[in-house]
Amino acid sequence: MTPACWIDGQPADALLLTDRGLHYGDGLFETLAVRQGHTRRLELHLERLLLGCERLGIPRPDESLLRGELHTAAQGQDKAVLKLMLTRGSGGRGYRPPAVPRMTRVLFRYPWPDYPAAWVEQGIELKICRTRLGLNPALAGVKHLNRLEQVMARAEWEDGAQEGLMLDTDGGVIEGTMTNLFASPAEGRLVTPDLALAGVAGVTRRHILERARGEGIDVEVRSLVLDELLRCREIFVCNSIAGVWPVQRIEARSYPVGPLSRRAAAWAAES
Amino acid sequence: MTPACWIDGQPADALLLTDRGLHYGDGLFETLAVRQGHTRRLELHLERLLLGCERLGIPRPDESLLRGELHTAAQGQDKAVLKLMLTRGSGGRGYRPPAVPRMTRVLFRYPWPDYPAAWVEQGIELKICRTRLGLNPALAGVKHLNRLEQVMARAEWEDGAQEGLMLDTDGGVIEGTMTNLFASPAEGRLVTPDLALAGVAGVTRRHILERARGEGIDVEVRSLVLDELLRCREIFVCNSIAGVWPVQRIEARSYPVGPLSRRAAAWAAES
Repeated sequence: MTPACWIDGQPADALLLTDRGLHYGDGLFETLAVRQGHTRRLELHLERLLLGCERLGIPRPDESLLRGELHTAAQGQDKAVLKLMLTRGSGGRGYRPPAVPRMTRVLFRYPWPDYPAAWVEQGIELKICRTRLGLNPALAGVKHLNRLEQVMARAEWEDGAQEGLMLDTDGGVIEGTMTNLFASPAEGRLVTPDLALAGVAGVTRRHILERARGEGIDVEVRSLVLDELLRCREIFVCNSIAGVWPVQRIEARSYPVGPLSRRAAAWAAES
Repeated sequence: MTPACWIDGQPADALLLTDRGLHYGDGLFETLAVRQGHTRRLELHLERLLLGCERLGIPRPDESLLRGELHTAAQGQDKAVLKLMLTRGSGGRGYRPPAVPRMTRVLFRYPWPDYPAAWVEQGIELKICRTRLGLNPALAGVKHLNRLEQVMARAEWEDGAQEGLMLDTDGGVIEGTMTNLFASPAEGRLVTPDLALAGVAGVTRRHILERARGEGIDVEVRSLVLDELLRCREIFVCNSIAGVWPVQRIEARSYPVGPLSRRAAAWAAES
């Protein structure tokens, strides 16, 4: 199942071997949902991408160019996934970035993954991963191309669980391998882990945070340990493609699909 | 200055866009010195690469294939740098590794970098980088393709210093951006930072460790804080291409090029 691919706006299937995206993971990406030709939450995705450029010291891409390329790739697609990658371009040997990097834009269009409806309705099972997330404020929050921790975590199990829960090296709960996490410690309240030292600050997480606060729900962004998470009333994970998946099971413990998970699912489904 | 490149033994200049090396940095690399057609310390490089495969859960590559391809690339080269990259190959969208990955072997041959002889003879200046190394035992020691920390550290300065010193997020001294580090806390003694939680376990570091111990020098592998490093009698950094560079300056402090640096330089130069 080969995705449709473009480099710098031109159809392509291969990337120059000298690209720093390959050598060092020196770049960023965004994963966007397309529904009926429309790219969901495009503004939030672009905002995060530009913030990531700032964090990594990568020149800001031409935003209108990105918008145009995303628009073209989304056009006529009923349901699709776009993955936009931005690397620091080709370089010589060595870590030092070129003085004036010529960024590479890579765009992939994948078929929509048809996750079972039961995952949204009845919830999923979370496995607790052994692989931990290292702490580094310089990279935390950024959706960069250094994703070996997630790969190793996702390689820990085959079947059964739909998602894996990742802790940081200090034992704090951070996120799923490909999702962010919310939990309700008490009726009408939500908590989501602080991502100042590890994790990816997801666009759907941000949207849910903003919608929940807009509706007067008390949402805390703070550190969360596993014991507290396991005692929460309801738990859900989210990303741009899955929307919201309530968690019905973490290893031996069961959770109900609660009212906050339902509301968050509705917010995530907004276009 | 385009390097000569091969993919799976065939001349190539581009890599499939679906390769997991690009998407996640899901792979490993080795940087090898070639002198007069001979690849230096090939056995140590292959050993580390195979250990890295085990650590990342990547299938072991066919060693005789690798040897053959390295031999062909090195043949007839008076001086050159080979960079051997091994990725978990192409995959679909998502972190989960393919059940049976088809690894990609990428080999690059670069011209030898002519570092000034003064760097070996009179030593170099080390800058202390602001960018820290995150701690993660799952990835520490492995020469994997997630190298954003090094890229960000190397981007911190333009001229002046030849190398940057990287601390971990707890303040421990780990290594240079592209070198390992040794220091002498007392006459006839050496210390090099323990790499159980961060850093790349270099082949030249290992060679120097073994040669020093073989000659009865007391070498400790342990944690080292900046204060102690700065009080050391002599300091040097090493890698497969640079050999040994004594450190003559760390910001405001000066160091002599001492006898252990000279001996280590001789060991590193052994074929």
